[in-house]
Amino acid sequence: MKLLSQNEATEIDLKLFNDYKFSVDQLMELAGLSCAHSIAKCYSIDKLKNPNVLICVGPGNNGGDGLVCARHLALMGYNPVIYHPKQTDNMLYKNLTHQCLKMDIEFVENAPSIAEIDNTFSLVVDALFGFSFKPPVRPLFDDIMKSLIETNTPIASIDIPSGWHVENGPLDEMAINPDLLISLTAPKLCSKYFKGQFHYLGGRFIPLSLQKEYNLNLPDYLGTECCVKL
Amino acid sequence: MKLLSQNEATEIDLKLFNDYKFSVDQLMELAGLSCAHSIAKCYSIDKLKNPNVLICVGPGNNGGDGLVCARHLALMGYNPVIYHPKQTDNMLYKNLTHQCLKMDIEFVENAPSIAEIDNTFSLVVDALFGFSFKPPVRPLFDDIMKSLIETNTPIASIDIPSGWHVENGPLDEMAINPDLLISLTAPKLCSKYFKGQFHYLGGRFIPLSLQKEYNLNLPDYLGTECCVKL
Repeated sequence: MKLLSQNEATEIDLKLFNDYKFSVDQLMELAGLSCAHSIAKCYSIDKLKNPNVLICVGPGNNGGDGLVCARHLALMGYNPVIYHPKQTDNMLYKNLTHQCLKMDIEFVENAPSIAEIDNTFSLVVDALFGFSFKPPVRPLFDDIMKSLIETNTPIASIDIPSGWHVENGPLDEMAINPDLLISLTAPKLCSKYFKGQFHYLGGRFIPLSLQKEYNLNLPDYLGTECCVKL
Repeated sequence: MKLLSQNEATEIDLKLFNDYKFSVDQLMELAGLSCAHSIAKCYSIDKLKNPNVLICVGPGNNGGDGLVCARHLALMGYNPVIYHPKQTDNMLYKNLTHQCLKMDIEFVENAPSIAEIDNTFSLVVDALFGFSFKPPVRPLFDDIMKSLIETNTPIASIDIPSGWHVENGPLDEMAINPDLLISLTAPKLCSKYFKGQFHYLGGRFIPLSLQKEYNLNLPDYLGTECCVKL
């Protein structure tokens, strides 16, 4: 299976929107759904100490995937709690946030500390930064990044472990170490440095022609599954 | 489980868009996906005489669900062929059509005859008219309705068997008789007249608060399933 560079990931994204005319709403819904499914497969709700999942939401599309994921986790019986420090005026993000609020999903104002995470949550979803990320992390995210680096609670990272270089992986010892990585559309180069328990692929929407164009060589999704274990 | 009147179905739809701020793109993607999943569960591709599925697409949201369903069926290995006689200038529908065309899904110009359907296809997806339908059927759809009424090929109807009254069911003997009915969000009143083999519920996106407001009393979706057998 091909591992994508940052440029290739950006190109594929642009082709999906410009050539294939998908809307962000459509693909984000499918991407976030596949994240929720991957999480439910790895962390079955009846085996967790509690159903509380902290969703850390960043300012871009990775954060949008996280908001969609939170909503689908709620529909599956989890109790997502969202930390979303940099909310934007973009209508899609405002609506995704509104959908969660109207579904009584809790939002917290301040970055939860390590102790708060470990005492309260069974899982953290890292939806802070995606394949467009270029270091360094902005100061607004310092607190939550520090908590994610030091927490003992398992982390599920959406597409890219936040703070990692999209191609070169963890840049120093102070890097987050997710237990689950959910690669979307195709794994990025940094995934070869992933050392967690579970690696899933989600985002079952790439047309065959685009798969061929980029020699993605994706694994087969089984039956109706929205995600596949790598 | 509650069966919805036409007014209730319309009200719930409006609340999802106006109060919960979902976009049509989002919910149509989830609805169409759940239709494709229901179909794959009832008509496993390896048990069909061929993977050819005729998708009959109407001018409204039911047709949009059909276009999304076609795309997901293609991603699961089926060979959908679309008959979409009344294409509109609405950008969402143009884009949904474009996505299918770019994925090399075939569109046919003329309504397939009964013989063409029975010789060529293993299944017909009826995405002509949904819960907003009021009789009579417009003349443009007479030919395809006649074929659907008389074909021996099983029909999977999305939400409402086309031509049926949303509350009172089949209005005369010349009515289609689907083998699978996929009710979306909640079954409508006409579903009590359904006599086919499989009845599924799809569209796992209704917030609990809205379920309670309308006493929907929906069955539990299992695990990560996007649809549930009724």
